[in-house]
Amino acid sequence: MGKIVNGDNMNKIDLKNYQLRTDLIVETITTDKIKNKEQIVDNIKISEVSLTEEEAKLINKKKGNYITIEFDDVSDIDNKKKVESIFASNLKQLLKKNNITEDDKCLIVGLGNEKSTPDSLGPRTIDNILVTNHLFEIGGIEEGFRCVAAINPGVMGTTGIETSTIIKSLIEGIKPDFVIAIDALAASSISRVNKTIQLTDTGIHPGSGVTNSRKEISFETMNIPVIAIGIPTVVDAVTIVSDTIGYISKHFAYHIKNIDNKTNRLIPRNRINYLNSDSNITKEEKNILMGEIGKLTDNEIKELLFDVLTPIGSNLMVTPKEVDFVINDLSLVLSGGINKSLHKKLMN
Amino acid sequence: MGKIVNGDNMNKIDLKNYQLRTDLIVETITTDKIKNKEQIVDNIKISEVSLTEEEAKLINKKKGNYITIEFDDVSDIDNKKKVESIFASNLKQLLKKNNITEDDKCLIVGLGNEKSTPDSLGPRTIDNILVTNHLFEIGGIEEGFRCVAAINPGVMGTTGIETSTIIKSLIEGIKPDFVIAIDALAASSISRVNKTIQLTDTGIHPGSGVTNSRKEISFETMNIPVIAIGIPTVVDAVTIVSDTIGYISKHFAYHIKNIDNKTNRLIPRNRINYLNSDSNITKEEKNILMGEIGKLTDNEIKELLFDVLTPIGSNLMVTPKEVDFVINDLSLVLSGGINKSLHKKLMN
Amino acid sequence: MGKIVNGDNMNKIDLKNYQLRTDLIVETITTDKIKNKEQIVDNIKISEVSLTEEEAKLINKKKGNYITIEFDDVSDIDNKKKVESIFASNLKQLLKKNNITEDDKCLIVGLGNEKSTPDSLGPRTIDNILVTNHLFEIGGIEEGFRCVAAINPGVMGTTGIETSTIIKSLIEGIKPDFVIAIDALAASSISRVNKTIQLTDTGIHPGSGVTNSRKEISFETMNIPVIAIGIPTVVDAVTIVSDTIGYISKHFAYHIKNIDNKTNRLIPRNRINYLNSDSNITKEEKNILMGEIGKLTDNEIKELLFDVLTPIGSNLMVTPKEVDFVINDLSLVLSGGINKSLHKKLMN
Amino acid sequence: MGKIVNGDNMNKIDLKNYQLRTDLIVETITTDKIKNKEQIVDNIKISEVSLTEEEAKLINKKKGNYITIEFDDVSDIDNKKKVESIFASNLKQLLKKNNITEDDKCLIVGLGNEKSTPDSLGPRTIDNILVTNHLFEIGGIEEGFRCVAAINPGVMGTTGIETSTIIKSLIEGIKPDFVIAIDALAASSISRVNKTIQLTDTGIHPGSGVTNSRKEISFETMNIPVIAIGIPTVVDAVTIVSDTIGYISKHFAYHIKNIDNKTNRLIPRNRINYLNSDSNITKEEKNILMGEIGKLTDNEIKELLFDVLTPIGSNLMVTPKEVDFVINDLSLVLSGGINKSLHKKLMN
Repeated sequence: MGKIVNGDNMNKIDLKNYQLRTDLIVETITTDKIKNKEQIVDNIKISEVSLTEEEAKLINKKKGNYITIEFDDVSDIDNKKKVESIFASNLKQLLKKNNITEDDKCLIVGLGNEKSTPDSLGPRTIDNILVTNHLFEIGGIEEGFRCVAAINPGVMGTTGIETSTIIKSLIEGIKPDFVIAIDALAASSISRVNKTIQLTDTGIHPGSGVTNSRKEISFETMNIPVIAIGIPTVVDAVTIVSDTIGYISKHFAYHIKNIDNKTNRLIPRNRINYLNSDSNITKEEKNILMGEIGKLTDNEIKELLFDVLTPIGSNLMVTPKEVDFVINDLSLVLSGGINKSLHKKLMN
Repeated sequence: MGKIVNGDNMNKIDLKNYQLRTDLIVETITTDKIKNKEQIVDNIKISEVSLTEEEAKLINKKKGNYITIEFDDVSDIDNKKKVESIFASNLKQLLKKNNITEDDKCLIVGLGNEKSTPDSLGPRTIDNILVTNHLFEIGGIEEGFRCVAAINPGVMGTTGIETSTIIKSLIEGIKPDFVIAIDALAASSISRVNKTIQLTDTGIHPGSGVTNSRKEISFETMNIPVIAIGIPTVVDAVTIVSDTIGYISKHFAYHIKNIDNKTNRLIPRNRINYLNSDSNITKEEKNILMGEIGKLTDNEIKELLFDVLTPIGSNLMVTPKEVDFVINDLSLVLSGGINKSLHKKLMN
Repeated sequence: MGKIVNGDNMNKIDLKNYQLRTDLIVETITTDKIKNKEQIVDNIKISEVSLTEEEAKLINKKKGNYITIEFDDVSDIDNKKKVESIFASNLKQLLKKNNITEDDKCLIVGLGNEKSTPDSLGPRTIDNILVTNHLFEIGGIEEGFRCVAAINPGVMGTTGIETSTIIKSLIEGIKPDFVIAIDALAASSISRVNKTIQLTDTGIHPGSGVTNSRKEISFETMNIPVIAIGIPTVVDAVTIVSDTIGYISKHFAYHIKNIDNKTNRLIPRNRINYLNSDSNITKEEKNILMGEIGKLTDNEIKELLFDVLTPIGSNLMVTPKEVDFVINDLSLVLSGGINKSLHKKLMN
Repeated sequence: MGKIVNGDNMNKIDLKNYQLRTDLIVETITTDKIKNKEQIVDNIKISEVSLTEEEAKLINKKKGNYITIEFDDVSDIDNKKKVESIFASNLKQLLKKNNITEDDKCLIVGLGNEKSTPDSLGPRTIDNILVTNHLFEIGGIEEGFRCVAAINPGVMGTTGIETSTIIKSLIEGIKPDFVIAIDALAASSISRVNKTIQLTDTGIHPGSGVTNSRKEISFETMNIPVIAIGIPTVVDAVTIVSDTIGYISKHFAYHIKNIDNKTNRLIPRNRINYLNSDSNITKEEKNILMGEIGKLTDNEIKELLFDVLTPIGSNLMVTPKEVDFVINDLSLVLSGGINKSLHKKLMN
């Protein structure tokens, strides 16, 4: 059996076959060479990475700034305010890093399909954006407000037009100084679904999270800074399973170490959070536990799962069943934070 | 009293004060000089008018072709099909009159606010439009289909952008040969609300039906033919009242003539349809019936009503209470008819 | 002409033919015999009427308490809070008048059709009601909360069941001490649409506002107190026109009196609010102004308009075009106010 | 390591800890003792099981009839019609088995939360049910129609009332002869999500699919036959992972057997459907492949996954991202099929 995995035809499987469909930078960083500035405020974790050209190449990402905000829950009103506030100040910083001034004109784009709940994050965020461009045209807008326009371009299936073409045309028509693009993403970790906001100045591929990759919306294609804001709202079965295989290892590492921990015996096993432990499974233990599967690297496991689930139509892209309520809460966090970071008057 | 109406300060009221907020041509035609081709098919009335430059000036309209389709109800599936079919063939004719060929590329625009039911006709129609532009780009589309793209530009209140600017930008970006713009209109007759489709090649003012007039979308501004398709879904109180005053005259004319009609006495008065009668009220009768009000022209009555209702906030713009169901039905008639008239393959 | 109106066949028209489709008490009170306690707080007018058996007969209403809250606008957040607060304290009083104590169990019923925007006030209000009945069953609910259950029974067209039968069955099943029923009403005055909350302990007829009268929901049919809360969201064309005819009289009375008022000449005529004036038109002036129509009583005018508009299908029941936004705001006012008045803990 | 799994503290984990949250009978049947009548029509698989008291005990299910209809896709209109037709005739048969005659009065109940897309199957189905009960009350309904009423009881979170209490009260109030209850279920197999209709006469637990178990709706509690119709629309991570572990075994079994199959080398590995193969992995092969994990039974694997995923909040209950469109299609299949099976006039 081992031959199959390590043998001839297994070797033929190429890493490129497995398209990593994630837009989240955090989990991509597996090398110590890249500095990742982390801080935790109010139980919310903020990670900042600035990739130079060389670093970017190392992890197959684009050069630029990446900020990731990880939180637990925004259904609670207090939590929502905390996340919104941290998001707003990070967005403001990112604008500054891109030399965007307080008078620069902004076009906000809500990517995704309003009629498909897990994909409606962008359009729903637009619904609560404070637009002012039309007021600037007629004059008389109060001090402290920036010139902001917003659009929901729709999806190619209903417009018949590449989203990037629509954005490009509008940029030429209304001449903003920068673009903010909001989209729902595919997560590459089960634990981050609906619990992470990513900001980057490297741009975005509409639809890239889910199969069909549209043309990029970025500084390179639009000639003005493009700030992308994304939240992973879906995850595929390959990711769910490969994450779980990783968790099994950690779970066993913990329980091997704590086999004589008497307190644990009083707690139901499904309440013991083993993740915070620093115990690691040894190679031998992993081998006993999972056989040949245990010998595969993370990427090889993903490849294998892809080959197992795809041909039988089971590599579903899924979203948590509470999607309607979560998307509503998340879109309010985004629109609130964007409004505050764009209009000085609203940020106190 | 008459002095008030005809006297000094009444004279100051200018007809221009009262913006006729209707986009329906039919009711504007009060002169015999303009030829109005009418036919009735399956209880559906089709009126066609082609205004020359001079004729257009006469009635303060734009030169061009106007087609009006009047029907009773589209909640019934058979009626819906009949209206859709008549609408499709009239739209096809109008395209031909504008020298639009079967290979010309079309951009369809759904004007109005999707979140406001009576104003959502345009966006809802777009939902069911068969778009093909993206398929043309990758090749391989079947014979018999035209290149069609579609967009919901949103409303200025949520985009901050003049709708005409969005359309203009997209035209430059995707280079269609002609535009079809769909919008909900304000009716100038209570009897036509939700019961009339108007087609014209003279263009459209988004939002002009209701207070705030946006920049025109027409051949003049876009440099390609613009076919406007509208259905009146709202009507204002001035129109409801002035229409009713007209009906009162007709009602009395009928009952004066039929005062000895014994059959009528057996029918409840509120079931007698007096409109089909050709009896007219005389000037004297109208005077007795309505006093000084009876001496006013239709436009003077509208002016008066405007002065009465506006200052007390009662010139409501209203829509029939069944609006949700009606807009749904009407949008399906429009999308079905547009699909058939644009794609040869679908028109049988 | 006069003969027609006052003559033989006119006499046959009976007042009963014209069903007054209003549930608002205020405008019904045309007699001085009934005491109407009025107060104005924050520009919000509160009218209270308690009808004895005899008074009720006089105006063809039911014996009981009627509270009417008239306001201007609830799209503004401050106004919304004021109206909500006044509504809450009036509801609380009405509960007390009906000997409902703080521990009494409440069933709240949202009448109307959720799929029809102008009729969705009841169901949308239920969406934001704080229910506690299930928590009472398992114990452990905090002090200061009442036992509250809520239901949207749907409309007979989709359930096939009389709404009153559904409510009656639930009352027997869950044994509440009182019922609160919320519904959208038909206004009998154009100026009150979406601007009035009525509370009463006399019950409600689901659907009575618009043509089809369902069985009453009241103390008499349910054997427990029924508090009805309604907001008029629709109005018919007869009402719009008859109201306007009344306004025309007042408009002329004002302008006759102010014919030499030089200031007025500087103001556009459609900005002069003549309603606050106390000038009245004389019988002779009205006669000159409106001829025979001017001689009719209000009810005779409504009858006439009903006979004019009904046979031609033009007695539309309409709603202001902003219905989506207004219903949303109003339902939040109602749910907020109900929650506060029911749960001591929430009322500060 | 193996000690941990098979050792002392592992033994303490009880199978009862892992609540099998599936309502689908098919996958529960792992014993040959129960006869399962299967047939395949138009690529749609229909399985029928009738459990006697003893058989029911064996698999921890209720005595009664279970019909499972498995299909691939209902987004295609032809497929939709086929599934609807097969569903209708199976529902008709199940009614007959329960001695329900053509004149028996039916109450249809749409369980679930209309505001939560994956849980909205029941309420959305009710939207298109043909109700007649109100017409029966006024008389004059055409031959060939049954007396049908329908209700969306809502969910306990918004009503505060046990759903079973609402149904019970309505049964007492409107006295139907039988109940049809429709609900979204949790799948116990990734491949069956949105692709299976289950019918049973054993009743249903509203909400049992997802954590909170409400009181049963069944013959035992309602005293009249209860036909439950369910479609699994959600699945939990434990199921996704344990299914995948099973697929890995099958995948390897196939590839071991086909290691010299030259044709396969020409096909991308992720296109080879190994499931139809009858190759089975041996115990030894499984051991090599998956180590200790490979020695666990299916239930032990589920237990393990539950212990691994639950404490870290990762046992998500998920739904495919296309949920909005799929639920729409499925609800139309159910409402169409129910209408046909209930009203003789509609079944041709």
